[in-house]
Amino acid sequence: MEHLYMQVAERIQTMIEKEVIRIGDKLPSVRSLSKEQGISMSTVFQAYYHLESKGFIEPRPKSGYYVKFSPRRMPEMPKICRPVKKATEVNVSDMITEVFYHLSDDDVLRFSLAAPPEELLPAAKLGKSMIQAMRDLPAGGVNYENLQGNVNLRRQIARMSLQWNGNITEDDIVTTTGCMDALTLCLSATTQPGDVIALESPAYCGTFQLAESLGLKVLEIPTNPVCGVDLEYLDKAIPKFKIKACVFVTNFNNPLGAVMPDKNKRELVKLMNKYDIPLIEDDIYADLYFGKLRPSSCKQYDRNGNVLLCNSFSKSLAPGYRVGWTMPGKYKDKVLRLKLNHSVSSATLPQAAIAHFLENGRYEHHLRNLRKQIHTQCLRYQQAIADYFPEDTCVTRPQGGYVLWLELNQSINTFEMYELAMKRKVSFAPGRIFSLQDRYNNCLRISHARPWSKQVEDGLKTIGKLAQQMMM
Amino acid sequence: MEHLYMQVAERIQTMIEKEVIRIGDKLPSVRSLSKEQGISMSTVFQAYYHLESKGFIEPRPKSGYYVKFSPRRMPEMPKICRPVKKATEVNVSDMITEVFYHLSDDDVLRFSLAAPPEELLPAAKLGKSMIQAMRDLPAGGVNYENLQGNVNLRRQIARMSLQWNGNITEDDIVTTTGCMDALTLCLSATTQPGDVIALESPAYCGTFQLAESLGLKVLEIPTNPVCGVDLEYLDKAIPKFKIKACVFVTNFNNPLGAVMPDKNKRELVKLMNKYDIPLIEDDIYADLYFGKLRPSSCKQYDRNGNVLLCNSFSKSLAPGYRVGWTMPGKYKDKVLRLKLNHSVSSATLPQAAIAHFLENGRYEHHLRNLRKQIHTQCLRYQQAIADYFPEDTCVTRPQGGYVLWLELNQSINTFEMYELAMKRKVSFAPGRIFSLQDRYNNCLRISHARPWSKQVEDGLKTIGKLAQQMMM
Repeated sequence: MEHLYMQVAERIQTMIEKEVIRIGDKLPSVRSLSKEQGISMSTVFQAYYHLESKGFIEPRPKSGYYVKFSPRRMPEMPKICRPVKKATEVNVSDMITEVFYHLSDDDVLRFSLAAPPEELLPAAKLGKSMIQAMRDLPAGGVNYENLQGNVNLRRQIARMSLQWNGNITEDDIVTTTGCMDALTLCLSATTQPGDVIALESPAYCGTFQLAESLGLKVLEIPTNPVCGVDLEYLDKAIPKFKIKACVFVTNFNNPLGAVMPDKNKRELVKLMNKYDIPLIEDDIYADLYFGKLRPSSCKQYDRNGNVLLCNSFSKSLAPGYRVGWTMPGKYKDKVLRLKLNHSVSSATLPQAAIAHFLENGRYEHHLRNLRKQIHTQCLRYQQAIADYFPEDTCVTRPQGGYVLWLELNQSINTFEMYELAMKRKVSFAPGRIFSLQDRYNNCLRISHARPWSKQVEDGLKTIGKLAQQMMM
Repeated sequence: MEHLYMQVAERIQTMIEKEVIRIGDKLPSVRSLSKEQGISMSTVFQAYYHLESKGFIEPRPKSGYYVKFSPRRMPEMPKICRPVKKATEVNVSDMITEVFYHLSDDDVLRFSLAAPPEELLPAAKLGKSMIQAMRDLPAGGVNYENLQGNVNLRRQIARMSLQWNGNITEDDIVTTTGCMDALTLCLSATTQPGDVIALESPAYCGTFQLAESLGLKVLEIPTNPVCGVDLEYLDKAIPKFKIKACVFVTNFNNPLGAVMPDKNKRELVKLMNKYDIPLIEDDIYADLYFGKLRPSSCKQYDRNGNVLLCNSFSKSLAPGYRVGWTMPGKYKDKVLRLKLNHSVSSATLPQAAIAHFLENGRYEHHLRNLRKQIHTQCLRYQQAIADYFPEDTCVTRPQGGYVLWLELNQSINTFEMYELAMKRKVSFAPGRIFSLQDRYNNCLRISHARPWSKQVEDGLKTIGKLAQQMMM
């Protein structure tokens, strides 16, 4: 006869399959299920372990068990992307302008925006740190900050790097005006106009535009939605296309959500050393992991100074503060000089406020809550996509970050769909803008940054319906 | 027989010549002199008017009369600068790094720094505006600001432009992360790597370095210490050297302090239209005038959108806030796109705080005091230079801004002098760094931003003595 715990597990599994309890839902606590069903707590534990091992549910620290997978309804994963093998002159698209120009318009439900909504940010506590910073700084912070950046902030960032065994000191860090500024400085420090750089494919459209504005050409590297760039391909492409720098998002990349396994990260750093070219590692999503541990960064394997890590607080704490940083390895002097030339220094108060926030342990606390929240949101959005989008829709299963990447039926042009959605005051990012080539026309990126609500559900329903209609 | 007022005036003039009362000193008030001397107030007024008309003294609003000139002791003006006629590949000098890298080191008396010292800045009042901004903004200002910049701030900046008849609306303005960021965006928007741009000579070394980092070549245009760039020369140079953009500081330029007369400004804009090239007008010192009225800006004569005015609050209110702006004329879309690509947007809170400060009339009030203060300082520094520097020293007579430009005896190398001064914990900016050519080796720039004190006087005495010694 079957074990009791197996019976319990099966009952729960059936409820998941029939969607009585759904992806993102919390299961009853061990204690309450034990009481309810008149079974021992250890039986409940065994049942939950069993379901966890089958991948249906997952525990979250200090919170309990959640449904994470339903075999019956979940769409497929998208396939690996194989871009055309040629370096393309970047050409800024009006499409991107159309989608991203008006960041602060409020009447549209923006699934296009991969930034944290204010409800999830600790505005009041950060405000207190700002006021404290004004008190602590000479003349309330009206003076120039040190060129390299607020030393307390750099110290805190160095401490945070312990989490991924980054052997980083405050002197290895240069603060910047957000992550895009860090990328701008690092790309300017490592390339000349006309150079070819490598990006993932699909990749964040802002990076393409930055490359264009610096007069660079871009080669897109095939990228697996789970484990990131194809290293074998890259190894051949570097000498063939005379690639002068790589810009990769190694953790929860945008838009695929891929994370390079440690082995690949080590391999990638080796490649950089082999050809002595820099890797600009955009690590902006790394702290937004859904699992137990922060993934590693390539920077941790960097012994030669070829990795320039870039990051910011814009995705996790305060986009409007414009505080980012880079660990520019052996390019530090060049980056500092460019920072001096282009902006003299970064704003004094925002750096000091965030330093104070970190010093008091508030950031770690906030991140724990934020991660829990966006993980739940991610699962709920996935469920809604499974519910409302056409059957043949593929969707990624990111383990961190803010975005889902969807592949729709080949017959659907998602930019046309975008225009229809905008008429209904809903937006998303059409796939086409994540490549310089004529690709991903049937893909789209949906941000799950906005907390779940009826309005969100209706928005996703609207997009799903449009997709259904466009297939007819 | 001579009028009574003439006798009074002559007595005062003698005291000025004998340096009993000195440049920068305040004269007795009309009322007190009238009492003291037993003469009518109108006689005193007549005496003062007379001395004013001769250029010895000047009235300052709500403050009284000040000594501004002493014929016996004032050094000569430097001659017009005639740089070599060739476009030079920019090569960032280690000298500049040496002089400017460590902005926040405090043990050195820095006459090299043309930034307002914190004593002159309204830190407490601005702090209140910051706190108010945090209260007023949704979520305390953690969100991204609109790409073009805080609309209240842009409105206030547009209002300020009324002072120079700039027909500017908030929609013509893009905020930036300080003035260097504005210059970076404007230069990037109007040039390609390899292009030739025109700068004044001497010119601010930071602009040379910016040009280098963007891969530009620089042609230096001869510049008169009183009325700015030589327009006849420029008219010939533009076609000859295929100049693609001009970057000029038209008001109180750095380091000469020259102000282009209105006629020249109009002429310059005509030249830009004739060749259809942009003028990037760095107007960062314009509000720091010593006279009664703000000088005009070329932007006011711009009908074709060829003038890109750049400015910031860094020289007048809060360097550490990093808030600047540009009025980019017909290049607005390109500047906006570059801003989006390189930095997403500018920090939210500093913009809102300064907007609040301006809206409440605090900026105008502060500027009035600041101008008075730095004018007095300027005169005192000039006097000290007359006192302590060698007889053949030439010095500029700026009518605004923070800097004096000195020409010493040809035998003196001011970079060597700089190194000796640094051993005595005093710094200035050696002339050589204000050109790409091997020029101005006997010149130096002294900032009079620091309020007058015994320490300042001793510092200037130290430099003067070094100059005396180096001539032997």
